[in-house]
Amino acid sequence: MTDLPPPVIHPAWLPPPTWRPLGSRRVRVDASGPFADTVRDEVSRACSLFGGSLSPAGGPADLILTLAPEDSGAAPRSVPDASDAAFRFGPAAPGAAPGFPAAGDGFRLGRRGTATVVTADGPSGLLYGLFEVIRRGEGAFDPALADEHHEPAFGLRVLDHWDNVDVHPVMGQVERGYAGGSLFWHAGRLRDDLTRVGDYARLLAASGINAVTVNNVNVHAGEAHLLTDRLGEVATIASIFRRYGIRVHLSIDFAAPVVLGDLPTADPLDPRVRRWWADTTDRVFATIPDFGGYLVKADSEGRPGPFTYGRTHADGADMLAAALAPHGAPVRWRAFVYNHRQDWRDRSTDRARAAHDHFAPLDGQFADNVILQVKHGPMDFQTREPVSPVLFAMRHTRQAVELQVTQEYTGQQKHLCYLPPMWSEVLGFRATGDSAPTLAERLSAGPAGSGSAVEGAASGRTAAGVLSAVANVGDDRFWTGHPLAQANLYAVGRLAWAPDRDPAAILDEWISLTFPDAPPRLRHTLHTLMDDSWRTYEHYTAPLGVGFMVRPGHHYGPDVDGYEYTPWGTYHFADRDGVGVDRTVATGTGFAGQYPAPWSDRYESLSSCPDELLLFFHHVPYTHVLHSGTTVIQHIYDTHFAGAQRVAEMQSAWQSVADLVDPDVHARVTGRLAEQHRSAEEWRDQINTYFHRKSGIPDAKGRPIH
Amino acid sequence: MTDLPPPVIHPAWLPPPTWRPLGSRRVRVDASGPFADTVRDEVSRACSLFGGSLSPAGGPADLILTLAPEDSGAAPRSVPDASDAAFRFGPAAPGAAPGFPAAGDGFRLGRRGTATVVTADGPSGLLYGLFEVIRRGEGAFDPALADEHHEPAFGLRVLDHWDNVDVHPVMGQVERGYAGGSLFWHAGRLRDDLTRVGDYARLLAASGINAVTVNNVNVHAGEAHLLTDRLGEVATIASIFRRYGIRVHLSIDFAAPVVLGDLPTADPLDPRVRRWWADTTDRVFATIPDFGGYLVKADSEGRPGPFTYGRTHADGADMLAAALAPHGAPVRWRAFVYNHRQDWRDRSTDRARAAHDHFAPLDGQFADNVILQVKHGPMDFQTREPVSPVLFAMRHTRQAVELQVTQEYTGQQKHLCYLPPMWSEVLGFRATGDSAPTLAERLSAGPAGSGSAVEGAASGRTAAGVLSAVANVGDDRFWTGHPLAQANLYAVGRLAWAPDRDPAAILDEWISLTFPDAPPRLRHTLHTLMDDSWRTYEHYTAPLGVGFMVRPGHHYGPDVDGYEYTPWGTYHFADRDGVGVDRTVATGTGFAGQYPAPWSDRYESLSSCPDELLLFFHHVPYTHVLHSGTTVIQHIYDTHFAGAQRVAEMQSAWQSVADLVDPDVHARVTGRLAEQHRSAEEWRDQINTYFHRKSGIPDAKGRPIH
Repeated sequence: MTDLPPPVIHPAWLPPPTWRPLGSRRVRVDASGPFADTVRDEVSRACSLFGGSLSPAGGPADLILTLAPEDSGAAPRSVPDASDAAFRFGPAAPGAAPGFPAAGDGFRLGRRGTATVVTADGPSGLLYGLFEVIRRGEGAFDPALADEHHEPAFGLRVLDHWDNVDVHPVMGQVERGYAGGSLFWHAGRLRDDLTRVGDYARLLAASGINAVTVNNVNVHAGEAHLLTDRLGEVATIASIFRRYGIRVHLSIDFAAPVVLGDLPTADPLDPRVRRWWADTTDRVFATIPDFGGYLVKADSEGRPGPFTYGRTHADGADMLAAALAPHGAPVRWRAFVYNHRQDWRDRSTDRARAAHDHFAPLDGQFADNVILQVKHGPMDFQTREPVSPVLFAMRHTRQAVELQVTQEYTGQQKHLCYLPPMWSEVLGFRATGDSAPTLAERLSAGPAGSGSAVEGAASGRTAAGVLSAVANVGDDRFWTGHPLAQANLYAVGRLAWAPDRDPAAILDEWISLTFPDAPPRLRHTLHTLMDDSWRTYEHYTAPLGVGFMVRPGHHYGPDVDGYEYTPWGTYHFADRDGVGVDRTVATGTGFAGQYPAPWSDRYESLSSCPDELLLFFHHVPYTHVLHSGTTVIQHIYDTHFAGAQRVAEMQSAWQSVADLVDPDVHARVTGRLAEQHRSAEEWRDQINTYFHRKSGIPDAKGRPIH
Repeated sequence: MTDLPPPVIHPAWLPPPTWRPLGSRRVRVDASGPFADTVRDEVSRACSLFGGSLSPAGGPADLILTLAPEDSGAAPRSVPDASDAAFRFGPAAPGAAPGFPAAGDGFRLGRRGTATVVTADGPSGLLYGLFEVIRRGEGAFDPALADEHHEPAFGLRVLDHWDNVDVHPVMGQVERGYAGGSLFWHAGRLRDDLTRVGDYARLLAASGINAVTVNNVNVHAGEAHLLTDRLGEVATIASIFRRYGIRVHLSIDFAAPVVLGDLPTADPLDPRVRRWWADTTDRVFATIPDFGGYLVKADSEGRPGPFTYGRTHADGADMLAAALAPHGAPVRWRAFVYNHRQDWRDRSTDRARAAHDHFAPLDGQFADNVILQVKHGPMDFQTREPVSPVLFAMRHTRQAVELQVTQEYTGQQKHLCYLPPMWSEVLGFRATGDSAPTLAERLSAGPAGSGSAVEGAASGRTAAGVLSAVANVGDDRFWTGHPLAQANLYAVGRLAWAPDRDPAAILDEWISLTFPDAPPRLRHTLHTLMDDSWRTYEHYTAPLGVGFMVRPGHHYGPDVDGYEYTPWGTYHFADRDGVGVDRTVATGTGFAGQYPAPWSDRYESLSSCPDELLLFFHHVPYTHVLHSGTTVIQHIYDTHFAGAQRVAEMQSAWQSVADLVDPDVHARVTGRLAEQHRSAEEWRDQINTYFHRKSGIPDAKGRPIH
């Protein structure tokens, strides 16, 4: 709280006070190259605020940032020069998985005499080491600081923007965006002032992200040209991100050879098509030497793809992989392929099965630099889904798990919903048994035989894993619409480094950074508000894993039957007797059988299926008794009354800290909580009324149902 | 069927062969003035096609069109000169109801010697007489032709276009339009080529229409300017319609004094506002001397209105009436006012009541030239509604009944749905008893004490009644998307002349005109396809008058619960036991009590309420037995299976006449029928499945329900 006018753009998790411990100390950067320059700039900025100094080479220092010596046996050490090419992929980079950045993100943090020392495994490690110091604040200078090596679990940590260049008449400028317009484009052209992109790059680097896809996976007519005649715009964006170790990716249109290249076909086996992609890709790398790679949504929800030409998705992906291979870059190929024109009357078709049905048979057919990008659940970013079985079915295929930071189905950044507890469950899921590797461990290990498994810090390799996440930012001055939704953006990078980290600890870290002067009362309130907000949201929305029940199209607010009779494959089959989707092998769609044991059995059996996924896997009577001891119908009533009530309590809690929060932030959050409360009551009443009208079973506690 | 290429624009009900009887005869026009010129032009065109001749004054004639002599005691006779002012309203016109065209639409048709003679009551009667001759064809020259006097039951017969100048991002260019873009505007400006507007004017005159509102009742920012700086565009349109006796009206924005006039208020009692409207209206009439009047949607679905200023709708309407009164023109003020942000949990509020609740207390407060425009039903143009009780509740207020020709809720011109049987029921409804006047008779009589009741041809007055209808045309080359939907457009004008005419006879008349060479097999097939198509549509959509159950927003296709939990006031309250809205006085919302006896009692009682409106007025168990002898649930199943089956039969019937229909017309209709069939099956299955899941009662005939 100051007397100065509030900053126009919220500083998110890098407000000036965060830099005080650094800015008031002597800092020495014993390295050269562009990242070292970026680090020096950061330190200089901090020092100008707080009076510290950047020490000259050999000068006195409280903090030293340096590169590991080449003979240390750690990461390959090559101080990059200032040219673009220094920060590029390359098959030549020893230890790098195909299509991955050369190693070097890791760093060792410890004390040497009276100084704290960051020893980076490679150039980018300097940056990440710097931000680790920032996160630790004064603690980084504790004489008792223990030596630690840090290395990201996922080598590629990418935020996928669903930004359009032009404002789409239905989807807006940012598809499923809830935070204003694009940071990159405005009024159909690249913004003249890209200052915020620089600020954004800095925030992302501080959270651990190292790649950004700049445009929507649904590539419309105008956006297709970013690959060719509008590539200069991408290069401009790349030049800003580059300073912070972030590579730029592009979503491409599979039909680009037709749309942009005047070819009569986009058949991936046609030599003309293959040449067009090779030439086009060469031009991309000639313009942007460190270009990150392609992202493709093909044969999905009306997008073009290889099916048009009777080819497989392996044919399609491998063609693009061949164009990218000379540059050592990957293509991410989305596994989100299903029949979106399903007949709701057809009970034998199950959208949950689709990705596995389509892709599992192709295992082994994808090139090394193809990354199959799989949504974390088998449906579509619902509040509660099982982990997609595709992520465990393709041992010979490199995969990315795709999370959704933008809150499409989780309250659209009007509702407070801290998502890392969900992501943590996904990344920690052990498909083949309670002592088996987690999903994160499996993804980090890469495909069987790839030789790129995580082998600890000593290996110096960059982990082969890929974590992708759909961004939640826009040109809103709080970045994410709901100021507290910044925590989701922050946490995705942090989980990509350390997927086993406790989401509550990440939350506290974010609170410390974002509210640097917060007294314990505010810290406690923020933690309490946010930590269980996902489960609160789950409580008042679609019950027990059944999903959807949202308004079609915009996906905000309840509509229990909204998708029940549509072609989208998203049904709950509620009738007067019961509800849920029978996905068992014995009597249902067989989806449960796509999991390896023991989960195939656990999901199959009504007695072992977890309560929170009961209606995802089983159709049960309303009187079915859950493991929790209550009936399904009473569980619905109880959780919906409790969820809405909890939101009212959140409002009160937030009001109680009005004196401790910047008025701008407080006002914005207050407005959002009011809408969340209205909406939660609407969810409560529609869900309860719907199931009461259907079941005829009264609430055991006699609360009002309409 | 000819070898010539088909005309680009379909001729609708005025194809060249229709003019053969006229064009091959000697025609004399014994009158002068603009309408006489229009008639001469029409005859000349016909003669040029078929070899007839326009006879000079005093020459030989098979057909004579003339004006009634002034001393006949019939209509006031004043041969207009060619100036615009000749065709204007005016308090001075003797016998005209305030705000109505001077009398003269009527005409006498009969034989004088060897000639057929049209003796027009006034100038416009020349036109209508000409088209009556066209309709009769050879029959008009039958020596045994009996003398008949024709006069319209409704003095003002107006088509309201919901055209936007600019394409609205959600609603498109024509709101609820299903036939392409606007006939008037394209790409944000008046079309350069207005040839089709001339053709349209001719078609409308031939059907009996005498006014057109050119823009959408939802007046957006751009369209508001049609009243002021873009008035020239309206004048251009008016100059085309004028030749066919059609006046142009404008939908206006109640907030225009603020939006266009830079006033701080639109308060209808503020002298500055009143002066602004008076001045603006004076300028409109200075530019368009025969301007028709204003149409206003105020305080409805987010439109501005007098409620903003704490004023009544009488205050608002009377202000505009005062501005129009010096020019003898009316304001039509829509009664479509209701709370569109209703809480669905609130069972005490009933949208059906809203218009009566708002307007009935204001009876007697409206100026003479205010016309309260009331949708025919209390809800919103559903497939089946009772007649709005507002139409019988305000004896001292001039009223218009508003029909919807555009098929918003009746299949959007993809489904074949001939609407006149519905309109005929509305216009023929006798609210106060089986021998009481029909709605049409009451409206034609005008308000109590207005002295403008229909008094037969001898009176020479123009009837005071107003029939308004929302247009269904666009720039589609068949005018109405579905070629057979032209019949709805044709019939609305015909019913406005003779509301007691049998809709089946109007259909045959339309068939004769549109398919002039049709052999009996085609005539029979068309008649059979179309005559009961409204009831077919009713069968497979929302049952028993309950309404809605459509997809929210676009209103096409089924979604039983789509509006059930929304703020729109459109509910069916289906639960596991029953369905319907209790609108009785005894136990429901009391809406039934808004009717006069005996209908208040008939609707109130379960035993006398007509089956087709049962669920509009009553909530009943699924096992309730209808007057038809079947249960509600079995009725739902039976009608839905039958309705979809009927559409399949319609497809077959249409195929069977492929050899008799212009291939273009046949192909278009074939495509529409295919979609209708798909959609009807979708309706059938969703409705049946929904109610089967809710009720648990199987179909007695064991047909497939999903």
